[in-house]
Amino acid sequence: MKQYEMTEFTFHAAPPALSQVSVDLAGFFEKDGKTVEVKGFYAGDGVYRLRFLPEEAGEYAYTIRGACLEEAESGRLMVEPAEEGRHGPVRADGVHLRHADGAWFHSFGTTVYALIHQPKALVDETMRTLSAAPFNKVRLCVFPKHYRYNHNEPDHYPFERKPEAAGREFTVQPGDQAGPGNPADAAVNDTWDVDRPCFAFWDALEARLRQLDAMGIQADLILFHPYDRWGFATLPLRDSLTYLDYLLRRLSAFPNVWWSLANEYDLCMAKSSEDWQAIERFTAENDPFRHLLSCHNCFKPWDASRPNVTHMSWQSKQLHRVAEFMRRLGKPVLIDECRYEGNLPEFWGNISGQEMTARFWRVTAQGGYCTHGETFLPGTEKAALATRTGEPDVVWWARGGCLNGDSPARIAFLRRIIEGLPGPLEPLRDGLGFLIGMTDEEAREAVSRMPARVQGFLSSFLAMEPSERDRFLAFEYSYAGHCGEEAFLYYRDDQCCAEMTLALPEDGRYAVDVIDTWNMTVTRALDGASGSVRVPLPGRPWMAVLAVRQH
Amino acid sequence: MKQYEMTEFTFHAAPPALSQVSVDLAGFFEKDGKTVEVKGFYAGDGVYRLRFLPEEAGEYAYTIRGACLEEAESGRLMVEPAEEGRHGPVRADGVHLRHADGAWFHSFGTTVYALIHQPKALVDETMRTLSAAPFNKVRLCVFPKHYRYNHNEPDHYPFERKPEAAGREFTVQPGDQAGPGNPADAAVNDTWDVDRPCFAFWDALEARLRQLDAMGIQADLILFHPYDRWGFATLPLRDSLTYLDYLLRRLSAFPNVWWSLANEYDLCMAKSSEDWQAIERFTAENDPFRHLLSCHNCFKPWDASRPNVTHMSWQSKQLHRVAEFMRRLGKPVLIDECRYEGNLPEFWGNISGQEMTARFWRVTAQGGYCTHGETFLPGTEKAALATRTGEPDVVWWARGGCLNGDSPARIAFLRRIIEGLPGPLEPLRDGLGFLIGMTDEEAREAVSRMPARVQGFLSSFLAMEPSERDRFLAFEYSYAGHCGEEAFLYYRDDQCCAEMTLALPEDGRYAVDVIDTWNMTVTRALDGASGSVRVPLPGRPWMAVLAVRQH
Repeated sequence: MKQYEMTEFTFHAAPPALSQVSVDLAGFFEKDGKTVEVKGFYAGDGVYRLRFLPEEAGEYAYTIRGACLEEAESGRLMVEPAEEGRHGPVRADGVHLRHADGAWFHSFGTTVYALIHQPKALVDETMRTLSAAPFNKVRLCVFPKHYRYNHNEPDHYPFERKPEAAGREFTVQPGDQAGPGNPADAAVNDTWDVDRPCFAFWDALEARLRQLDAMGIQADLILFHPYDRWGFATLPLRDSLTYLDYLLRRLSAFPNVWWSLANEYDLCMAKSSEDWQAIERFTAENDPFRHLLSCHNCFKPWDASRPNVTHMSWQSKQLHRVAEFMRRLGKPVLIDECRYEGNLPEFWGNISGQEMTARFWRVTAQGGYCTHGETFLPGTEKAALATRTGEPDVVWWARGGCLNGDSPARIAFLRRIIEGLPGPLEPLRDGLGFLIGMTDEEAREAVSRMPARVQGFLSSFLAMEPSERDRFLAFEYSYAGHCGEEAFLYYRDDQCCAEMTLALPEDGRYAVDVIDTWNMTVTRALDGASGSVRVPLPGRPWMAVLAVRQH
Repeated sequence: MKQYEMTEFTFHAAPPALSQVSVDLAGFFEKDGKTVEVKGFYAGDGVYRLRFLPEEAGEYAYTIRGACLEEAESGRLMVEPAEEGRHGPVRADGVHLRHADGAWFHSFGTTVYALIHQPKALVDETMRTLSAAPFNKVRLCVFPKHYRYNHNEPDHYPFERKPEAAGREFTVQPGDQAGPGNPADAAVNDTWDVDRPCFAFWDALEARLRQLDAMGIQADLILFHPYDRWGFATLPLRDSLTYLDYLLRRLSAFPNVWWSLANEYDLCMAKSSEDWQAIERFTAENDPFRHLLSCHNCFKPWDASRPNVTHMSWQSKQLHRVAEFMRRLGKPVLIDECRYEGNLPEFWGNISGQEMTARFWRVTAQGGYCTHGETFLPGTEKAALATRTGEPDVVWWARGGCLNGDSPARIAFLRRIIEGLPGPLEPLRDGLGFLIGMTDEEAREAVSRMPARVQGFLSSFLAMEPSERDRFLAFEYSYAGHCGEEAFLYYRDDQCCAEMTLALPEDGRYAVDVIDTWNMTVTRALDGASGSVRVPLPGRPWMAVLAVRQH
């Protein structure tokens, strides 16, 4: 047994007569006076399992009890220190992410919604692609996904069907987008027996989670979503909680899982606000290992201020607001959808590789985390390279395959730079950006503390209505961050400056590099710089300037 | 005398003993029962002038009276119809601009703030540049400008100095930005005798206005601005109105002048809101020819809803809101500053030619009007071509010279396309854009009228706070316009689509062109198209699609 690696206890007994989910099996793991309680699950074929994730090296005392055991089992676990490269689950630490062992986690995400619902050859290919890609987090759904460019039937579903639905076909109607149903749909579930998990489904899912873990990739598991033709999006609340119960019993001890309650929760028309509260609470309360927990929106962001929500998982193009929400929430902000690199007719799926790269820099320079996706229209040149498996109509963002965009190489370049910094970035107050998201009162108070010479200018700014100020500031962007006085990073975005002036601390000496984020070059501009210094720039867009303190 | 051309009456008399501005000279021009009253002005050397702009062909009866005349002069003017190519002053017609004769005016502006305050050779060069450029409007200041990259002393000022200020030098302090003063500064004017115009200044200004008129260029004359070291920005209100009195007497009969009350009125710290109201009222009431009148902001837009304000002259990067303000105001919306093509360190002066071009398309596709500027940092490669006169530190946006950016050729291309349309563009409701700028009540009402199939989706949109909706929509842009059912223009901006679907009227036949706005190509995609049609696109940014009805 090793620290940060899941350990598993297996028991054989008669299969449950009623629910295969709410089985009576619990383990209690104690170390230094702290006890962690975990629930076991039924794995089929008369096998019961119980999983534990030791977060500390050393000796644990444990007891496992349950109706499926002849007698309680007690013992001691000797946990060896973590293997090199194993850092434990990722958690929030203030506005940043770090592993249980303290190593910073700089999240660079990608999106493959229906990753696990594809033919095996395609999933294998996706895994090979991920092994060589710059991404250390992937957003993927538990339930299969029905949406444009993704209509294939999965091999397995998470549950067995009710007898009366045995022969039902989930036909794709031509032009059918299916969809999230409505509140009335959630009244009845005549298809799925949520108390009878489909073990093949869960085994396959777990195999992929293990593979991701071996590659150092976090699985941002999406627990619900609206794009459905099977009835998963319209499960009644009680059934949804039963599903979560099973999922949490099986998966909580994986070191690399995060809980994303939903993709676009606010398009799940069959769920009420109360349903969502219950789902959030149930998930948090039934995960003994306190994995990261958030929820992804279409329009209204999930309220990440509640204690059970560990970070903000925000679909947004308002990238200038990352620092604002970091300040407001005191939690990490992940931009988990901001348009994808591709050529789809849809607005959300047709930005260039340059723009996808720029979005990563905008978010990352403020100390936030950004997520990638790739969406080339089936039938077009780029899409022809989307898979070598022969599977038709493969779009990465839904189904995986190969990556063909221009941004992944640049995201890898960015990741190397960020991981080379002395620590995670905090937003830097630059230009008018410090006023973003302030109430009228906050803004007046902040302005009153500014130097006299800018008071007139700023009082004219304050003459705008507060709501107009925020709309104004959305287009006066500045993307910059710092690690204390150790490093300062300025991303110049679309600004084609021939020079910029840095205001470095007078008492430090800094190496100043000019970074071409598109051409992936780093050029030393100054050495031993301090105070106010001019940095020549090439007058092209997408440049960054990095000043690192020299010791 | 010709329709739409200024005519002038000259009188010789003793110079005024007191004010050279408020001279007693007035003309009354009557036709078809309507009388236009104009005031004369003193032009120096015992010469008085009175100017009239006949807007109709045919016979006018006139009388000119005044203390400087021995007796009133009456007579008849025979006004010939306008020469070909002369269309008369530009006025607002609903949300669009058109000349007095009904010809549409598609404004394509540029910015040369201190155009007239430069050495003659440089102004001559600017005029040559403008004669070959795509711009038909130029923003220029009456008062000289003191700001970064523009510190030269002009040959003349609009007024003579008071005797006590005869020897005063207007020194540029190193690093001095001078600036707009403060309310206290406006209490005293110990420098300028506003009742004694400097005739050489006004003669030179008029010569340039005439030159612009001959090139078909509208002079968007900026009457006040904050960037000053001479005391013009801090004139007391009474002196400001005296200045305006003289200006309006001299310049109102020019066919090609517009009144821009200020550049960045809200940074003119020495003027109160009441001062600005008085200035707006005075300008409107003392211009017998009702020229276009607006005012340019830094932060808070000028309230263009008042009757004296003919259009919105908006410094803004919120280009998605052009249609919103057209709808709200029912007046033309001009984006009179949205960053400039160049490489300055300053945010406002460092976008690429591609971005400047894109900004024109975004605004123009909605039926608005956009204004250009060029700002290459002195000392850089592009700036080396800024003038051939030898004058140092020439930046087009302040001082004129030559144009070296990549956008003017593309703006010329856009202008040809827009002028080839059957009429001006109205905004097209596309995507969620129709909700931009709506109150909560308006949005709910608009959503209730949408098809049932999108009600759920839109109700999730409405779950956002109204202020959040507008911030959201700022990044879900769509730039499209139409001329009735005669033409539909979609600007795809940064979308790299491989195709798009048009919903054309079923009962028309349309020619559909794909426009590469950067490479300046027009490619026929479909002929005789109607109803829902797919248009293949090359998957690059900055494309537009134009459908024109075939007859």
